[in-house]
Amino acid sequence: MSDAPPISRFPVPRMEDLPDDLRERIAAVAEKSGFVPNVSLALARRPAEWRAFFAYHDALMEGESGLDAAEKELIVVATSAANDCLYCVVAHGAIARIRARNPLLADQVAVDWRKADVTDRQRAMLGFAVKLATEPARVTEADLAELRGHGFSDDDIWDIGAITALFAMSNRMAHLTAMRPNDQFYLMGRVPKEMLAQLQGPV
Amino acid sequence: MSDAPPISRFPVPRMEDLPDDLRERIAAVAEKSGFVPNVSLALARRPAEWRAFFAYHDALMEGESGLDAAEKELIVVATSAANDCLYCVVAHGAIARIRARNPLLADQVAVDWRKADVTDRQRAMLGFAVKLATEPARVTEADLAELRGHGFSDDDIWDIGAITALFAMSNRMAHLTAMRPNDQFYLMGRVPKEMLAQLQGPV
Amino acid sequence: MSDAPPISRFPVPRMEDLPDDLRERIAAVAEKSGFVPNVSLALARRPAEWRAFFAYHDALMEGESGLDAAEKELIVVATSAANDCLYCVVAHGAIARIRARNPLLADQVAVDWRKADVTDRQRAMLGFAVKLATEPARVTEADLAELRGHGFSDDDIWDIGAITALFAMSNRMAHLTAMRPNDQFYLMGRVPKEMLAQLQGPV
Amino acid sequence: MSDAPPISRFPVPRMEDLPDDLRERIAAVAEKSGFVPNVSLALARRPAEWRAFFAYHDALMEGESGLDAAEKELIVVATSAANDCLYCVVAHGAIARIRARNPLLADQVAVDWRKADVTDRQRAMLGFAVKLATEPARVTEADLAELRGHGFSDDDIWDIGAITALFAMSNRMAHLTAMRPNDQFYLMGRVPKEMLAQLQGPV
Amino acid sequence: MSDAPPISRFPVPRMEDLPDDLRERIAAVAEKSGFVPNVSLALARRPAEWRAFFAYHDALMEGESGLDAAEKELIVVATSAANDCLYCVVAHGAIARIRARNPLLADQVAVDWRKADVTDRQRAMLGFAVKLATEPARVTEADLAELRGHGFSDDDIWDIGAITALFAMSNRMAHLTAMRPNDQFYLMGRVPKEMLAQLQGPV
Amino acid sequence: MSDAPPISRFPVPRMEDLPDDLRERIAAVAEKSGFVPNVSLALARRPAEWRAFFAYHDALMEGESGLDAAEKELIVVATSAANDCLYCVVAHGAIARIRARNPLLADQVAVDWRKADVTDRQRAMLGFAVKLATEPARVTEADLAELRGHGFSDDDIWDIGAITALFAMSNRMAHLTAMRPNDQFYLMGRVPKEMLAQLQGPV
Repeated sequence: MSDAPPISRFPVPRMEDLPDDLRERIAAVAEKSGFVPNVSLALARRPAEWRAFFAYHDALMEGESGLDAAEKELIVVATSAANDCLYCVVAHGAIARIRARNPLLADQVAVDWRKADVTDRQRAMLGFAVKLATEPARVTEADLAELRGHGFSDDDIWDIGAITALFAMSNRMAHLTAMRPNDQFYLMGRVPKEMLAQLQGPV
Repeated sequence: MSDAPPISRFPVPRMEDLPDDLRERIAAVAEKSGFVPNVSLALARRPAEWRAFFAYHDALMEGESGLDAAEKELIVVATSAANDCLYCVVAHGAIARIRARNPLLADQVAVDWRKADVTDRQRAMLGFAVKLATEPARVTEADLAELRGHGFSDDDIWDIGAITALFAMSNRMAHLTAMRPNDQFYLMGRVPKEMLAQLQGPV
Repeated sequence: MSDAPPISRFPVPRMEDLPDDLRERIAAVAEKSGFVPNVSLALARRPAEWRAFFAYHDALMEGESGLDAAEKELIVVATSAANDCLYCVVAHGAIARIRARNPLLADQVAVDWRKADVTDRQRAMLGFAVKLATEPARVTEADLAELRGHGFSDDDIWDIGAITALFAMSNRMAHLTAMRPNDQFYLMGRVPKEMLAQLQGPV
Repeated sequence: MSDAPPISRFPVPRMEDLPDDLRERIAAVAEKSGFVPNVSLALARRPAEWRAFFAYHDALMEGESGLDAAEKELIVVATSAANDCLYCVVAHGAIARIRARNPLLADQVAVDWRKADVTDRQRAMLGFAVKLATEPARVTEADLAELRGHGFSDDDIWDIGAITALFAMSNRMAHLTAMRPNDQFYLMGRVPKEMLAQLQGPV
Repeated sequence: MSDAPPISRFPVPRMEDLPDDLRERIAAVAEKSGFVPNVSLALARRPAEWRAFFAYHDALMEGESGLDAAEKELIVVATSAANDCLYCVVAHGAIARIRARNPLLADQVAVDWRKADVTDRQRAMLGFAVKLATEPARVTEADLAELRGHGFSDDDIWDIGAITALFAMSNRMAHLTAMRPNDQFYLMGRVPKEMLAQLQGPV
Repeated sequence: MSDAPPISRFPVPRMEDLPDDLRERIAAVAEKSGFVPNVSLALARRPAEWRAFFAYHDALMEGESGLDAAEKELIVVATSAANDCLYCVVAHGAIARIRARNPLLADQVAVDWRKADVTDRQRAMLGFAVKLATEPARVTEADLAELRGHGFSDDDIWDIGAITALFAMSNRMAHLTAMRPNDQFYLMGRVPKEMLAQLQGPV
């Protein structure tokens, strides 16, 4: 383990040095998923920012929404790919595969969302998200009108935009820190869970 | 007042309908600055996201740092200008003028940070921030080394990067909502406070 | 005064060394506006070019036109902002505020003309100008047709295009010389004239 | 099978209608890898072009070289990702995982070659390839000198450039035809071969 | 001749050292056109790649097609100009002048295909080709539908796309090798053949 | 003549309707070069602007300079090509061929100035000009220092920059008006003058 590649360009705190609330939440995630996602440790260098980041994340990614869980993750994958963000594409690609119960979709969206196996409505959603991610000033009322034409409500549009905005931040923290995705993410959602356990140990 | 331009594309909650903690914080800001910044209301449509946003904001913009308050605001101005973000350039331009006690600097940085009246160290800081804002994948170890050569510590670099990342999010929320800056911001920091009061009423 | 920042990267002639016609015109401007705009001195290094530049400028900016004086200045501000031109955004922003009798509009147009408080017709005008400024080969007959749909005549379209073209030149001269805007421009048109006089001396 | 998504926007010939040499080569590949790669059928619409394409492909990808087989595939993955080419990233990502005996590397290179687990020499190779793929006119003698500084010979540089050039073509054929990668590619090289057989049938 | 500029950055084989089939084909071209096009020698460094390249070239450029010979060459000129490829613009510009029996068209297309003296149908063809050359992922079904609206068949569209793809490769080989166009190309198709002979010797 | 393609999108005045000074200068040029360059007529729609334009042009292109006449024209060709400006590339390409007494150089510079047959000093000059033309805000003191390293004086640098700036304007007027180059320009400087006369009539 001593020569595993670093997970961040910046020094990373040890679990035992973290404030209780961070350590508890991180331990809970680790218990559920079988490992500690590197983002939890890399950002823990700054507990106040960590708390805000995950509060924001949970409000958007786990809150009520007209978007389903897979659609939210695909927004993350598409916009993070537009930013060449290794951590977010790999980690949220894994979650997207699991949420969508589809082993192909996340890779498709990461490489070329235009040609992915999504509905026209989802393609409009991803197109809007990528535009806001890469050319935010060009987003106009006409873009929102197009989303409404696909049946998205004001709250849905806010969710699409706010998830995009949150990961605009997250992608830049990942590039700033050269954040490394955990090896486990690469295979998650590609093979049945029991096979994964066989390959990676308990996940 | 009834035909003032809207401050957001999305419906904006009324002060009296907000959760207590939001209303109190907004009232406190209004008392201090003489008006309610539109961002406080535009984002209040989603209280949980609002809390996370301002917690993040305060952790970075009001926390201890090797950067002074004016430098932080200039990072916001430079990166928000790179994203053509009207709300953030106007509002944080105002704060930057006040923090820097300089009525010219924010406009200079907004239009062309390369030619602004800043030190070489600050120019390196702004160059790094704009690169992370606009071409995040191109940020490499060499860019961090250059900042270290100007005397920035790891924590300073984290601050530069994290402020940039936070406003990458904020700029996109502003473009999503077509957020309108308060008229008061345009003049703040350009004339002595007493003259401002004369022009705008109590600010 | 000896350590005021230079107004150009290139040596700047002294008033007394200028040809009579340049000195007289510059003195007239100074008398009217209370100071000598730096562009007059920075370009005076080359009298023949200076004469052509200001002849061109006057023909377009002071000639008869279907565009009003404020609209002309907003074209300058929008296209100069697209070129990150400090001198032209600051100086013509000041003139635009005065011509439009509006202290906010120039800053809005400089940061994001799409969201500025302009009419749809003016937004089409600014969109055309920015396209010609930044992607001139993409201007097609369809773009002119759109302007005609907003009621612009052939002569109006020529004016929009020619002002854009003139400042494509001017912006590049400003970047070539690192031309510095006079401090006075930053506040002009933001406060009543008598207050300005109080703050800056006679302007 | 009738409602499997099409593998090309253009009609695809049936195996039995192909010229003998195409059918034989395609059958040989299918026997070896367990399925017919869609590119073989999608391009078979034009037998003469097909023959040239695969002759070019084999000359470069299977010829003698100072680059090893994994390095060649990583050039394909990096440059195809720069072109958002779904077919080539997915198919050659699979081959790269197998050739490199590394289940992570291809995904890393596809998302952000700058942060992938490659040597400095390989990073220089990928940087050159992506530059030639995306900004070919900017490749100068200095870029070749940098590669030579990493120990690449003239023939190695030719190989890097020619593979990049070949896939500049291939990527455009894939975008022209909306070529769909076979589902099998997504998992190849991620799990042991016997597990793959269990999951996908004989591969 | 000893100090003629090199035709490639890489060593170029001598005619007498080439495999027979290459030498024969090159000699045949030279007999027909009066000189050996430099591409034939520059690429001959790799005979297997050379054979594939020219097989591909001939299949597309000399095969049956709904596009006439001049149209094919104009696709090469437009896309090669988008890639700033000196060899291909100059050499195929010459061929385009001859094929189109028009001394102006190739220069027009090289500088600005939007304003060239072509039909609307040809302009759509060139627009599609340049889009596939420069932003391949943005080519969608709608672009093909537009071509069909101009009467192009599936096979015509394949030809437009495949020629563009082939020269995406060729342009990159030319930039890799700094391939120099023969001096003779510059004048071909601009003056009557007998005058050319007078100027250049037998061509 | 009635169905010759229009030389401008805008109505063009007849020679006999022009102010005397314009008509005389245009006649003088026509006498010297054998035809009336279309730019003279297309811009004559606005005599005051016309006078300023040509005054500027003559001051720079015919004034004393450390740059020779061919170098000035190559700056025009390189920057106009970067702007895809048909009129300026074709017309000034012709003049550049004549001034440089070299039939190849202008085409080389138009397609890829990096690979043209120019000296290193000239390549630095063209690189600076193209940077100022296309990314003016990125021009910094370091770029001027590099030119000085090649022996360019302050006045030479001003000339390079001012010619670039003038044609930034001119290119946009040409795109605005869809200005058509005269057919005669295409061949000028490619064949001996007497041959040209034979082909085009008196030129």
